[in-house]
Amino acid sequence: MPPGTTGLVLFDDQFIQYYADFVFHPTERPMALAISPEGERTLFVPELEREHALEVADVEGVEAYPEYPGETHPLELLTRWLRRAGLASGTIGVDHDGYPPVMGYAPRPLSSDLSVRPVSPQIDAQMAHKSPAEVALIRESARWGRRAHQLLQAYTAVGERESEVSKRATAEATAEMAAALGPDYRPRNRWIQGALALYRGQIGPNSALPHAVTLNAAFSRGDTLVTGAGADVWGYLSELERTMVLGEPGPEQRYFFGHMLALQDLAFETIRPGARASDVDRAARAYLERHDLTAYWRHHVGHSLGQRIHESPFLDVGDDTLLEPGMVLSVEPGLYVRGLGGFRHSDTVLVTADGIELLTDYPRDLESLSLPV
Amino acid sequence: MPPGTTGLVLFDDQFIQYYADFVFHPTERPMALAISPEGERTLFVPELEREHALEVADVEGVEAYPEYPGETHPLELLTRWLRRAGLASGTIGVDHDGYPPVMGYAPRPLSSDLSVRPVSPQIDAQMAHKSPAEVALIRESARWGRRAHQLLQAYTAVGERESEVSKRATAEATAEMAAALGPDYRPRNRWIQGALALYRGQIGPNSALPHAVTLNAAFSRGDTLVTGAGADVWGYLSELERTMVLGEPGPEQRYFFGHMLALQDLAFETIRPGARASDVDRAARAYLERHDLTAYWRHHVGHSLGQRIHESPFLDVGDDTLLEPGMVLSVEPGLYVRGLGGFRHSDTVLVTADGIELLTDYPRDLESLSLPV
Repeated sequence: MPPGTTGLVLFDDQFIQYYADFVFHPTERPMALAISPEGERTLFVPELEREHALEVADVEGVEAYPEYPGETHPLELLTRWLRRAGLASGTIGVDHDGYPPVMGYAPRPLSSDLSVRPVSPQIDAQMAHKSPAEVALIRESARWGRRAHQLLQAYTAVGERESEVSKRATAEATAEMAAALGPDYRPRNRWIQGALALYRGQIGPNSALPHAVTLNAAFSRGDTLVTGAGADVWGYLSELERTMVLGEPGPEQRYFFGHMLALQDLAFETIRPGARASDVDRAARAYLERHDLTAYWRHHVGHSLGQRIHESPFLDVGDDTLLEPGMVLSVEPGLYVRGLGGFRHSDTVLVTADGIELLTDYPRDLESLSLPV
Repeated sequence: MPPGTTGLVLFDDQFIQYYADFVFHPTERPMALAISPEGERTLFVPELEREHALEVADVEGVEAYPEYPGETHPLELLTRWLRRAGLASGTIGVDHDGYPPVMGYAPRPLSSDLSVRPVSPQIDAQMAHKSPAEVALIRESARWGRRAHQLLQAYTAVGERESEVSKRATAEATAEMAAALGPDYRPRNRWIQGALALYRGQIGPNSALPHAVTLNAAFSRGDTLVTGAGADVWGYLSELERTMVLGEPGPEQRYFFGHMLALQDLAFETIRPGARASDVDRAARAYLERHDLTAYWRHHVGHSLGQRIHESPFLDVGDDTLLEPGMVLSVEPGLYVRGLGGFRHSDTVLVTADGIELLTDYPRDLESLSLPV
């Protein structure tokens, strides 16, 4: 319990998944997880979700309200319950002052009746430290991300279309993964069901847009491609991205690919216990300055990940978090060249006692990533 | 501009899509849309999204900040820009006091430097009134939702698996839709690409959970099934759901199906200009009381929809919004019977001058929805 708080109330679906193993799609119907100083967890749900919560949530209690909007605002009912349960005797730690507005939900701050204090940075800090069990799940996720990526790479060819290649690789890797994990496996992530490999529209010149929207482009000779792959293993994720070239790389592609690889190597070397997250980004920015590449920069070096595909700390000049063993980070410095394409690998690494361990295991060199035409 | 405000700042991705036709996935990097009293729109984005925003957003200006967290918090940079642009001379209307916490973003309230007032209920009210162009897009969405549902119904059979049937119906309907809408069509929704039909795990006894999580169940003789179908047509959605029975319906299935149908008919009759949203739910609740069915109730009768699959007003005893021509609503009273299944049709209706027009056009009777075994 953060110091000075008499209880916690969390509204964020990812925080609720983390502390209660309950996965839901946020709608206009508020959901909340209350945690007492003794660690007793109560899930506050609409009647619609009561049976589901009782069956699957890892909590000590479930409280249901009739419906939203309903005759009494659910946040008023939550406030009454918090008082009855003794959690409102002092200041309540919250991730958000009330349920966030979504799908037409009319927000009502929890602070209109109770004393609250934001604690999401403390929760983020706790989530940044992975237990050995969490690392094992991320490692397994990386294994299936690799498999999906192998298939994506194998099926990518001139004239094929992005969506078909992605669907085929995703479906086959997911089937292999489901067979390997056995019948008890259940997807726990809202976006990824099983393994996944895709392009997100980052094909040819479009790959210069770091987060392009999928347009189902066809592949052409000479395209610079940026991929993404991962898997959901009991809620835990990993991130594997590769820059590939369709055909023999040209001199410009070799130039930017080489610098991108050097940047990632530099980031790998900089990450170690005792370094700060900002040190890694600062080293990358200095490299870009030295090589006159700053015009091609678009984003920081990486981020923590786990149940959430992005989380803090960020490998960013503005984040002075001390790196510690047990943190899991994406390392993905990128160069984006208008008219030519994007150059970015992303690997998932574990901070160890004396450096890093790569959890993603996939070829990084240009030769392995140049596709035959 | 809501009265008394000197500008608007919106952070919600759906509000930004509505006013700027810009679709993005919220990450830890804040995004905001500022609107001046003259209606001039400026999109505030990370450098990463600048080119993308310039290319596709329907705005008068784009302002980029370097990166999050960065050396200066982006919300501080936004505050400075709002001051320079003259939008901060009085109270700014906001959907949320700062960018909402997501993926490890450390929130900074806009109100720490500026005077703000929440206006999301006014925005929701504006979005609830659809223009003829919006209704045309929802109508087209309903057409492709029907097609996807026809295929889902055709492919559902004893021994088949939910995911395969859903994928096949979805892929074929999406291909037909893409061919019909032509090469300019682009998905605008973050969750649905093209047309879609699925079961969401609502198969047999699991269909008693209103929002069950998909488990890829196999279909069995006697199953009660609850479907969902729709399509994204330039960002606009529709909702079509049907209760189906695999094989000859038993007496209990007939009983609950009949009451569900009567409840939906009652809701259709109650919706008209001048009625309140709550009247519709109250009529349904009274029917349930009269027929001793309240134990099977789980949720209100329906909700508005458009670009968002759920939005306000809600057909709920707690929502006294006056219904008006041009509103588009889902009508989906449900009965949920533990051990037997869920019974819910959902149709999308347009409120007209003297009642409703059904935008979804699909058989509702039990005979049409009993599948051969």
